[in-house]
Order: sequence, then structure tokens, then C-alpha cells
Amino acid sequence: MDSRKHVLILGGGFGGLWATRALASAPVRITLLDRTNHHLFQPLLYQVATAGLSAPDIAAPLRHILRAQKNVTVLLGEAQAIDPANRRVTLDGGTLDYDYLLIATGAAHAYFGHDDWAEHAPGLKTLDDAFGIRQRILAAFEAAEREDDPVRRAAWLSFVVIGGGPTGVELAGTLAEIARHTLPREFRRCDPGTAQVHLVEAGPRVLSAMPENLSENARRELARLGVTVHVGQAVTGIDAAGIALGNARIASRTVLWAAGVAASPLGAQLGAELDRAGRVKVNPDLSVPGHPEIFVAGDLASLAQADGKPVPGVAPAAKQMGAHVARVIRARLGGNAATNFVYRDYGNLATIGRKAAVVHFGRLKFFGLLAWWFWLTAHLFFLIGFRNRLVVLVDWAWSYWTYQRNARIIGGQARRR
Amino acid sequence: MDSRKHVLILGGGFGGLWATRALASAPVRITLLDRTNHHLFQPLLYQVATAGLSAPDIAAPLRHILRAQKNVTVLLGEAQAIDPANRRVTLDGGTLDYDYLLIATGAAHAYFGHDDWAEHAPGLKTLDDAFGIRQRILAAFEAAEREDDPVRRAAWLSFVVIGGGPTGVELAGTLAEIARHTLPREFRRCDPGTAQVHLVEAGPRVLSAMPENLSENARRELARLGVTVHVGQAVTGIDAAGIALGNARIASRTVLWAAGVAASPLGAQLGAELDRAGRVKVNPDLSVPGHPEIFVAGDLASLAQADGKPVPGVAPAAKQMGAHVARVIRARLGGNAATNFVYRDYGNLATIGRKAAVVHFGRLKFFGLLAWWFWLTAHLFFLIGFRNRLVVLVDWAWSYWTYQRNARIIGGQARRR
Repeated sequence: MDSRKHVLILGGGFGGLWATRALASAPVRITLLDRTNHHLFQPLLYQVATAGLSAPDIAAPLRHILRAQKNVTVLLGEAQAIDPANRRVTLDGGTLDYDYLLIATGAAHAYFGHDDWAEHAPGLKTLDDAFGIRQRILAAFEAAEREDDPVRRAAWLSFVVIGGGPTGVELAGTLAEIARHTLPREFRRCDPGTAQVHLVEAGPRVLSAMPENLSENARRELARLGVTVHVGQAVTGIDAAGIALGNARIASRTVLWAAGVAASPLGAQLGAELDRAGRVKVNPDLSVPGHPEIFVAGDLASLAQADGKPVPGVAPAAKQMGAHVARVIRARLGGNAATNFVYRDYGNLATIGRKAAVVHFGRLKFFGLLAWWFWLTAHLFFLIGFRNRLVVLVDWAWSYWTYQRNARIIGGQARRR
Repeated sequence: MDSRKHVLILGGGFGGLWATRALASAPVRITLLDRTNHHLFQPLLYQVATAGLSAPDIAAPLRHILRAQKNVTVLLGEAQAIDPANRRVTLDGGTLDYDYLLIATGAAHAYFGHDDWAEHAPGLKTLDDAFGIRQRILAAFEAAEREDDPVRRAAWLSFVVIGGGPTGVELAGTLAEIARHTLPREFRRCDPGTAQVHLVEAGPRVLSAMPENLSENARRELARLGVTVHVGQAVTGIDAAGIALGNARIASRTVLWAAGVAASPLGAQLGAELDRAGRVKVNPDLSVPGHPEIFVAGDLASLAQADGKPVPGVAPAAKQMGAHVARVIRARLGGNAATNFVYRDYGNLATIGRKAAVVHFGRLKFFGLLAWWFWLTAHLFFLIGFRNRLVVLVDWAWSYWTYQRNARIIGGQARRR
């Protein structure tokens, strides 16, 4: 029998993968369970959705990443129920017992109680989501080319992105570039250059996590690209024909959701208190109240920083949490006390199309071309795997010079939705 | 009104695309209709199915390829009915009238009357097929890793390819390489190196279009890679648990179909004679008997060469047919007589895993490493678009040195089928 303690990690995102790696030399055996076979670099997922990158550029098989770490077994599967009393997780087929459990299953889209909007306004969390959105975007231009009626054609050439956070800003900016620069010469009956791109944000400004002057710069860059930015206006309805903003309507056949997230439902099975978004309120060491052997990391964890602000739901926070859980488990195994998690904010950045980005690093704030180079370098650096970095660089250089997008391939099935 | 004759081309494969290009300077307007948005380099499709290449490596949007050819309009859509009397095609929404019609919609899989086999043994014709097969192959290894029962595990690690033509040989060889070289270090509970790969051919030898000594060489290479080749044995049953070969059974959870093709059903609407596989028996100039304004090219056309052998269903034949149809249309427009189509056989080649291939070029026959380099160069040369060639070369070099496969990414939905 293997006398090592068994650490079960649910989710191979930033939280789960960083915890797994940080336990490489610990005297434990680890099982890493994920619903997909890959770790996904989510910050660039919008580029797969907008046909700039292919899936392998931003995803790598978990078992390939971890091939040399002999104390970990990677399994493809989904956790369906957690039984904390018996320290057991039920999968889609079989069960797994654990000594320590890390739940890092993240978040999904939330439609603020309007689940019927999901069908008309898909969100972007997984590669499958990205392929679905790519299909919708490219098929909309194809439908416009086939449509003779000018009103219906305009609705196919109208795109709405809901949510003015980094993903919404990046999607809207890229959509405008595709319409203005990538496609025009290729169509004969419609003019993609006449496409309308709307970005809708309920709050007073886009990129609300950034300082105000950077938000304002992002708004100007979006306007320069041809994006119509609607701030301070909440969506009140979404259907197949478009959206409602109070009494106004925007006709659009392609609405994308980048607004709300809800935590993974697994958190609710722990009997612990949840916050408004369904996240688990964790102890300062990231363990679950009443269960020192269960931890939560990443977007599923709810924790306040020393200044009272919540730890944000971003990739660096998830990585740091994962690594911290590994430290706590090591401390426990050694009979030492667990330390509290402290989030280190290394900054915040977002890109708005070609050659423009905004960067906020402590006291450093800058935007424009320099910020864009900074964004590019940082994202390349954090991509896992040398091959990915090389090919992504080639793809980006290619797109930069030619305005072309490499991955404009859609299948046959969902032709016109 | 546009007084130019309207040429309607159904299908953007080799036949349709080569005809379109050859009409670039003709005084016609062209509509090219395809069910997908891309031209597909089918000879490398098996590499997408086996996770070696990504979709954009072997596919490019038709409207991007043809962006500079101003006399062509590309439409995404599907022809549903042909009305030769009124020179009209009905689409999924709307109709298109034509002066000249080229039908180049190719072939799909055929299961010799066993349509129930389709569910258990998918074939490989489209990118969607390739993604489905990739998902099955990778998910089978994942299922083996989760399976504790040795008999059930062995069935997950057993792969059957039916059909010993080029596609079947390439699939089986690549599957054996993945099991032996790509995956072993990455699994903890099962050993992918113990996987069984079976290639089943009803005829007396694999690659039957090749000279006998090259078939024999291919068989030896397959055996060296660990593929069990069954020749002279027809499949008599396929279900979820495996296949039947007469009285014998092979247990397998992953069966792939590379055996039979059937022509596109559009051909049957012309009132012309069809051959046994449903192909349209065309006149020597590739027009349809009784309809000099309708042509068929590629896998849907049935035509005998001067020596009585049929023109084979391969990419070079489809390209030559497409170009010939363009010549005939130009001749008709100029009041000249149409010439007969003559197929020029430039040779035949197939690859069997790393560093091995067989080549038959007229009197030239060779195999082994030199043939493999020849195969690689030829395929790179014929790939459309410089960017594709460059990235495919990088991917191949990477795979060659590392034994890794770049595109091992599967989605969440079809996890365990």
C-alpha cells in the first residue's frame, strides 16, 4: 500500500495546476481531475474566439505538462458530488477518496437570473465556447453576404458585446478590426466595413478595475476602431433579433456575453457560507471553515484582502492561491502551522486591438503602443510551452503585417446557426 | 443587367476551386457555393484526425483564396435540388439560376448497406469528421487510464482501422506511433505502449493501387511499427464492443472507417446514368449526357480512361477535371468545339509513419526514407498559402524531433464518447 497522503485536486486551471506543481517534491500522491484534457491559457481565449489563434496555441494537455512529475496522476472526468464527512468525491463513474482536497473548478457565465439569454448571448470560458463564438461571428458575415434585404443584412452585420471588462473590450476591439481590416476585400454583395460593433457596460466606465484615465483612454481607442460604447446602460432584454437597453433596441444577430460569472456549483456542496456570486467564503489560509483538509483556490474562492477589497478573479490570483494551498499542505504534513494567504497585485493590463493597450502596475500607468508591446511580451512569457510561444509569435507577426486572421475555419454543421 | 454568362459551381474542393481559378479571365460571372467556408487539403486530413496538425494548417477560407478574383462570388450554403429543365438550383433558402453548372460535391463514406456501422466506425472526409475522430482516439487513452478492469482497459487500448488504402495505412501507422512514442511517459495507471492497432483490408494487399512490391514494403513497415495487418478478410459486423471478421472478433472501443465511399446524392438528380458507387457517368468532355451545360468533376464523376481503367478518385484527377471544365466552358463561349478530358497520372504516393513512404511515379518506384522526404516535399508544395506551408513545416519538424503531436486538444462535451 502507498502510505503517502492523497491530495485530490479538482480542476486543471491556474489554481489547480499551480498547486500540483508546487507539490512536486512533497511526500504525497496527487490526483488531478479535469473535465477536459488540457490546461487553458484563458487570457488569450478571446483570440481563439475571434479566429486569430488555434486551440493548440493556448492549450496544452495536462498530462503532457505534468509528464515528468511522477507523484501526479491526471484523470479526465467530472466531479459530481463531494462528501466531506467521508472524504470522498463521486465522479461520472466511480469515486475517489482523499486526505486533502483542493477545489479549483472556477466559474461559469451568469445571466443574472435571465437564463433564457444564454441561447442568444453565449459567454466565453472554455475552448468549446470559443469555437461556438467563432462560428457565430464568421457565419454572420456569411449570412450577410447571402441576404438581399437591407434591414436583415444590417442585423447580420451588427455585433453586440455585453460587459466592459477586459474580455468585453478585447472582443469588441477585435470584432471591429475584423470588419474594417480583415474581411472587406473578400465580399462581393455586402460590405463588412459597414458592420456596427456595440459594447454595452452597465457601470459608468469600461475596464472599471483600472484607474479612470486608463478607462478613458480605452474608450477613446475603442471609438477610434469604430466601436460604439454604451456606458451606464444595463441590458434589459436579449432575444434572437437583438437586445433592449431600457426603451431603446439594438438589432443584432450576434450578441456575446462578457458580463457576469457565477462560481462552480461544487462549492455549494461543502456546507460553507457562499457570497452573492456563489463563491465559497474561505478562511485566511484558503481552507474551508470547519474542514481544514479542504481548500478552495481561484475564481471559486471568496476572500477579502487586508484593505477589505476582495481578491480579484484573475489568473495571477488563482496561481498564487494554488501555490499557497500547496504550502499549507506541506506545513500540515510537517506539523507546522498554516500561514495566511496574501495576494500580491503585480498589475493589470488589457489590450484594445492592434497597437493599443492599457497597463497599470502599481504607480505605473501607461497606454498606447508601448503598453501594447508590454502586453504582448507579458502574454508570450506566461504562455506554457516553448512551441506555443514560437507559433503564437509567428501568428501574431503574420496578423500584424497582413491584417489576416489565421484560424478562420468553421465547420459545416452550424452553418447559419 | 450583367450580360455575362453565369457559371454556378457547387463545391469548393479540388474540382470546384481549380475550375473557378481557371475561369479567372473568362467573360463570365461565377458563383462558388460550398457547405463550409473553406477549401480543405484532404490528403493531410488524417494528420488533423491524429492530432498532428490544426485545422488552419490544412484549410483556408475560400473567399480569402479567391479575394483577388473579381468575377467570383463565394457563398456559404448547400444545394438541395437541381432542376436541369429550368437551369435552377434550390439552396437552403433561395434559388440560383445558371447558364453553366459544375457539380463537384465529391463523395461521402459508404458502409456497403450497413448504415448502422456509421455510429461505431466514423469515416474521414471533413474537418468535423477529423475532430470527431481525434476526440475518440484521445478519449480512448483517457478512458483506459481511468479503467481498472484489465479486459475493458484492453478494449480501450485496441484500435481498428478498416480499409487498406492510403488513408487507412496512414491512420494505422500514425496511431501506432502515438501509442508507442508520443504517450507512454504521460500515463500512470495504463501503458499506452501495449495498445493494439489493427488494419483490416478485404482485398489481398494494402495500397492496392500501387505495384505489388510497394504494397509488400508498406506491409512490412506497418508491422515494424506494431500494426497487425489483416488482408483478405472482410468485416462482417461492427458494434460498440468491436468488430467481427468472419468467425473471429476483435474487441475494440475505437473503430475507424477508411473503406468505402459513395458519391454525393446530387448526382442522382440529373436523370443521368450512375455507376455502382453512385457516380455520374459523364461524357468524355465531362458534361452530363443530354445536358451540355452541366458538368461533373472530381469524385462524383465516373469516366473511363483510354485503357478502360476508371479515372481514380484522387486530388490530382479532381484538379485536372476542374481545369478541363473551365476549358470546355471557354471553348463553348468562343463557339469552339469541346475537347475530351485526358487524365495525366503523375504518380501515387503514401506515407507510413515517420521516415517511411512508398512512391510510384511512372517507372519510378521507391520506398523508405527517401520516399518519405519526397512525400513531405510534395505535400508541402501543394499546400495552399505560404503561411500554411511554414507552420506545417514547423509543426512537422517539432513532431519529428520530439515525437510530440501539437494538436492534442479535445473539448469537454464528448468526454467519454
